[in-house]
Amino acid sequence: MNKGALALLIHGGTENWSPQRWKGRFDDVCGDRRVLLLPDAAFDPADVHYAAVWKPAPGELAAFPNLRVIFNLGAGVDALMADSSLPQVPLVRVAVGDLTQRMTEYVTLHVLMHHRQELYLRASQREKRWQPKFQWPASAVSVGVMGLGTLGADAAEVLKRIGFRVAGWSRSARQIEGIECFHGQGQLAPFLARTDILVCLLPLTPDTRHILNRGLFAKLNRSGPTGAPVLINAGRGGLQNEVDILSCLDDGTLGAASLDVFAHEPLPAESPFWTHPKVVLTPHNAADTDPDEISKYVARQIERFEAGAALDNVVDPARGY
Amino acid sequence: MNKGALALLIHGGTENWSPQRWKGRFDDVCGDRRVLLLPDAAFDPADVHYAAVWKPAPGELAAFPNLRVIFNLGAGVDALMADSSLPQVPLVRVAVGDLTQRMTEYVTLHVLMHHRQELYLRASQREKRWQPKFQWPASAVSVGVMGLGTLGADAAEVLKRIGFRVAGWSRSARQIEGIECFHGQGQLAPFLARTDILVCLLPLTPDTRHILNRGLFAKLNRSGPTGAPVLINAGRGGLQNEVDILSCLDDGTLGAASLDVFAHEPLPAESPFWTHPKVVLTPHNAADTDPDEISKYVARQIERFEAGAALDNVVDPARGY
Repeated sequence: MNKGALALLIHGGTENWSPQRWKGRFDDVCGDRRVLLLPDAAFDPADVHYAAVWKPAPGELAAFPNLRVIFNLGAGVDALMADSSLPQVPLVRVAVGDLTQRMTEYVTLHVLMHHRQELYLRASQREKRWQPKFQWPASAVSVGVMGLGTLGADAAEVLKRIGFRVAGWSRSARQIEGIECFHGQGQLAPFLARTDILVCLLPLTPDTRHILNRGLFAKLNRSGPTGAPVLINAGRGGLQNEVDILSCLDDGTLGAASLDVFAHEPLPAESPFWTHPKVVLTPHNAADTDPDEISKYVARQIERFEAGAALDNVVDPARGY
Repeated sequence: MNKGALALLIHGGTENWSPQRWKGRFDDVCGDRRVLLLPDAAFDPADVHYAAVWKPAPGELAAFPNLRVIFNLGAGVDALMADSSLPQVPLVRVAVGDLTQRMTEYVTLHVLMHHRQELYLRASQREKRWQPKFQWPASAVSVGVMGLGTLGADAAEVLKRIGFRVAGWSRSARQIEGIECFHGQGQLAPFLARTDILVCLLPLTPDTRHILNRGLFAKLNRSGPTGAPVLINAGRGGLQNEVDILSCLDDGTLGAASLDVFAHEPLPAESPFWTHPKVVLTPHNAADTDPDEISKYVARQIERFEAGAALDNVVDPARGY
């Protein structure tokens, strides 16, 4: 009997998202299972038991009558959850160590850039000014991490090791050694009140859409060593109200922002974020996924699933992540 | 009987080096010991038993006939060691946790900036280009730390935690868990051959002057993921041959450099470093010393010394640090 095929639906990629590259990696790790790169492959839709996807079109997955599991090739599943025709089969998020490490690199870098006054220092270099400003130590600065899943917890741990005062906030209660943990709507205000640098790694759900807005920014600590608080969003563009971010940067409610994600990507050329002097912008590359790691992760999960074991990291449709 | 006085000789400061600020801190922690801020204070030189100094003029310390200990208010003592009239009393370097943490902030920030292609990403932002390049994970990048004292060992540990392949090199053999340790002249070449990002935290001594030169840069790894190797110098300007750094950046022997220290500080306006597109320049502020922490450290050491205990962190004149 033939093994059910694995269909790859990979759209809208950058250099790292070459569909042929993914096909090669999946071929390497899937043994005698057929790997179909869509839309080109010729096949019978009924043969497809598994789909590994990145930004599939709405409705595209409904074409497979015998689908058993969907694997999303990134951490965020908000786009899939918005597809009302999504087959009612388990949806698995990737959660590989590589993705976690990359996100921790990004978060650590951007917290340190703002803490160490990089915007000021680069301007000083351009203007040939040898003029250090007073530098607070990390131990005087409070970083707050929104979202304490695998990614948030790891970033918090590294920031703590560097010496920052680190707290976290999550939907449900968590305990992480050395990290002050807040949770739920009721503890959001006290969490924000002690935060100088806010790092957002929340999943995008109906509850979190536009959570990064003026009302929230106004609750951040305004008497910290850095003066105005800093926002770092490496979650999803849909988490942020972009009009509010711009006006809060301009009126001093926010001192600076690092943004990796945007409501519309690629960010349109007319966006004021490109040229805003208080914005550090990256092209949604905080945590690229590595085809090597992820193809192995998916192949291992399929093997376990066919042997009757439970899948890891299955999305809870009620929570949305 | 009166306690011997403590003389403060603090010169050439930036905002953080206000002599009055240091005087206030030392007054707070020295109890009934007189704290003399030179050159203004009226006093008998014979009353001075201790000197706490930052960039004293050559010969200035020879004026005190009863000097017992000199405390240098920073980590590097190369300027003092070059003063042939320096009194033959113990010279103590500061080694406070605060200084170590600040240097680790700097090193972590600059390693991550180069690793995460910040020069490219800032240029992309200026040019409104949404064009991520392939990003290697930290686990593919080898960082080499020259100098494995308190500062180097702490930075190496944090870089290791973030996921880099970390090795260190020091004059004499060291052992640090998880860090591949090289030592001595004989192991310098193999250390350089495996290094993609070189971090220099060496003390400046006759042996290390201009150690960062073309011959050394040419031995760094040329086949690493980043292509051309990166130099980060937060030690002393005298460690580097600046003509070599510039020509190596221009011919591709080096891919980029972060420099916090220079042969002449403040860096003259005509220096090509200011405008070099591959140079990230900071005004010798990698690890500012904190008057609060350091005045307490000095007061505690004086108390212990007068109670007959050994001083910590005494410089070995033969080694020069």
